[in-house]
Amino acid sequence: LSQIKQSWQVRTAHPVSYDMVFCHDLFDPGNGALLTTEGEQGGRRRFVVVDRNVLNHHGAAIDRYFQKNDIIACIHPLEAGEDNKSPSQLKAVLSALDTFPINRRNEPIIAIGGGVVTDLVGFAASIWRRGVPRINVPTTLMGFVDAAIGVKTGINFNRNKNRLGSFSPPDRVLLDSSFLQTLPKRHLLNGVAEILKLAIVKEPDLFSLLEQHGRHCIEVHFQDSISQAILSMSVDSMLTELAPNLFETELARVVDFGHTFSPALEMHADMDLLHGEAVLIDMLLSSIIAWKRSLLSRSDLDRIFSLVLTLRLPLSSKGLQPNMLMQSLIERQHHRNGVQRMPLPTGIGSCCFVKNITLEDINQAVTYLHRWLQDRHFEYGHQNHERIFQRGPRGN
Amino acid sequence: LSQIKQSWQVRTAHPVSYDMVFCHDLFDPGNGALLTTEGEQGGRRRFVVVDRNVLNHHGAAIDRYFQKNDIIACIHPLEAGEDNKSPSQLKAVLSALDTFPINRRNEPIIAIGGGVVTDLVGFAASIWRRGVPRINVPTTLMGFVDAAIGVKTGINFNRNKNRLGSFSPPDRVLLDSSFLQTLPKRHLLNGVAEILKLAIVKEPDLFSLLEQHGRHCIEVHFQDSISQAILSMSVDSMLTELAPNLFETELARVVDFGHTFSPALEMHADMDLLHGEAVLIDMLLSSIIAWKRSLLSRSDLDRIFSLVLTLRLPLSSKGLQPNMLMQSLIERQHHRNGVQRMPLPTGIGSCCFVKNITLEDINQAVTYLHRWLQDRHFEYGHQNHERIFQRGPRGN
Repeated sequence: LSQIKQSWQVRTAHPVSYDMVFCHDLFDPGNGALLTTEGEQGGRRRFVVVDRNVLNHHGAAIDRYFQKNDIIACIHPLEAGEDNKSPSQLKAVLSALDTFPINRRNEPIIAIGGGVVTDLVGFAASIWRRGVPRINVPTTLMGFVDAAIGVKTGINFNRNKNRLGSFSPPDRVLLDSSFLQTLPKRHLLNGVAEILKLAIVKEPDLFSLLEQHGRHCIEVHFQDSISQAILSMSVDSMLTELAPNLFETELARVVDFGHTFSPALEMHADMDLLHGEAVLIDMLLSSIIAWKRSLLSRSDLDRIFSLVLTLRLPLSSKGLQPNMLMQSLIERQHHRNGVQRMPLPTGIGSCCFVKNITLEDINQAVTYLHRWLQDRHFEYGHQNHERIFQRGPRGN
Repeated sequence: LSQIKQSWQVRTAHPVSYDMVFCHDLFDPGNGALLTTEGEQGGRRRFVVVDRNVLNHHGAAIDRYFQKNDIIACIHPLEAGEDNKSPSQLKAVLSALDTFPINRRNEPIIAIGGGVVTDLVGFAASIWRRGVPRINVPTTLMGFVDAAIGVKTGINFNRNKNRLGSFSPPDRVLLDSSFLQTLPKRHLLNGVAEILKLAIVKEPDLFSLLEQHGRHCIEVHFQDSISQAILSMSVDSMLTELAPNLFETELARVVDFGHTFSPALEMHADMDLLHGEAVLIDMLLSSIIAWKRSLLSRSDLDRIFSLVLTLRLPLSSKGLQPNMLMQSLIERQHHRNGVQRMPLPTGIGSCCFVKNITLEDINQAVTYLHRWLQDRHFEYGHQNHERIFQRGPRGN
């Protein structure tokens, strides 16, 4: 009995593979992009979750698309908005799936919408039958450059942002910028904040492009060729950063810039902030802290603030409670395994990580931001002040 | 602008690594097995989910263990039983986690219990913060040879067995057979069914050992050396089968033997079957179908049935509805991507996969099983008949 085996080691690797491609005319029945699945003969059924607003614009075209392609499609509408990134909406999607049986491998779920839709559907797809394939079609700028192209899925839980979720890659991401044509301005600017994030801590060329062309790109809803270049650079930059660290083995992440204080801001119902709006406030507070600590030069800090003005990003310091921001940092510290690892910019295109941010740092930064906004009020007058604070309707 | 990048491919692999080890005296404060995390300095907090029955036996020892090791432990009791493998119990675990913050990497969740506990806690750990480490301590035979040693986690949903879950490896599995000492007989036999599964389709030597020693091992609650050998062979056989196909890339799985009809049986509230009891019925029906199709010899079929009698496994054909079994097969067909891929034994230690099982096959098998049980009644008399049907209390 001495030869009885007493211990075992399992060592293997799970291959991860997914594709992203710029495309157009997705709902043209002759375009097979939505139906192709890599390496597997496609089945005849599709479960399709579509943002309610997108359905209003494209519902008929979507129905026709599947009909013409002889596919039995179950269209499940999902209301957008952070409040719907919830356990109850997740349950609704999972229950709908249970009543519309699809094969486990060759009938991928299709998610068409913004970050809320692709995050929630991604999570549903990753846990239904322990994971079925899915295709992401982002229809917002936030989805295009951020939510839809990574492997992170999730929902909010107990008022904690993305508390439940998975690292689960989509099979394909179809990037069609024509959806941005009808995207409300507030939601365009929401995505611009994530582009700005990459520009500040990682891409000086992208930062310059935004300085020169950003305002114009927003005006034309990212439909011209310079916009395409900016979108492509943003996607490329994000993937270059994500791909080597897809499962967050390394917890000090450049892309976490702007994502330390923002979860609490975004989950604060009274503030009514979109993700990008919360990230913007966090980026500015972080930049001020970096400057106060002599990690960032005064001129670079000014360049960042100037670009925010140029792009007319909605910004307010209303309701910013230093204690709440500290709580968010403490929460993120658990997420970063007990160390703050807070990204701070050290110039346009570079950053470092610090682990000793104090409540006093946060106090100073909030005071600075508050005064800066007040100064703008006096400097530019009421009209401009309103513009700084302006926000459009929520819900896409 | 012709150089704008239009498509991207992400190709990588996610390393998977976990260990299993036979051990004893887990709650001896000097034993560090429960506290060690591979490669990471351990934090001082632990979230520990424990089967209520185990807590009754070992609660004081568990408290003392963490106290003596200067660990702040949150003990979350979980009722066992298939009914508790539910969304509501999952939510309770996740909410408890939210109120007891642990670091994301160096404070692994500890699951102590049977398959319900390790499956549910494994799922919770895999989605909380998109996945935190965990340690499995199986306390039932089913957990020891099956549930706790693989990477499949899950809960039931809408009366579908394991409909929601993940492929998520534990970090460590601590195998202490002394827990089996106090395991009720019914739950011992529950695990024996899974050992029998491996023996029939994969391990002729294990089958012979069960014929010779199985009855004795059950009597001594798997506490002697021959029992240790059988446990070790079972774990080894299971891992040999699982490891090369950890994420079910291959859908024709030998370990699916007995798992085609059983999900419906197990989810059928009136039948009140444990997992292994449902698997046993499925294995016998599958074996009968294999014999009727001349895939399995009469003598091998008899050997299988004889061993079931020898081991005194609880068995009944009561409530077996061929239509319900067919529905289960159709459901499994979706799970196996549109093809039945049903494992049937072709001898003691081998199997094949078939894709054309009909309702008539099922009808014949149910009739045969029913008659066989009736014959046993007359042949062995009432006392033995009762023993065949006998089941102990549920709930561990």
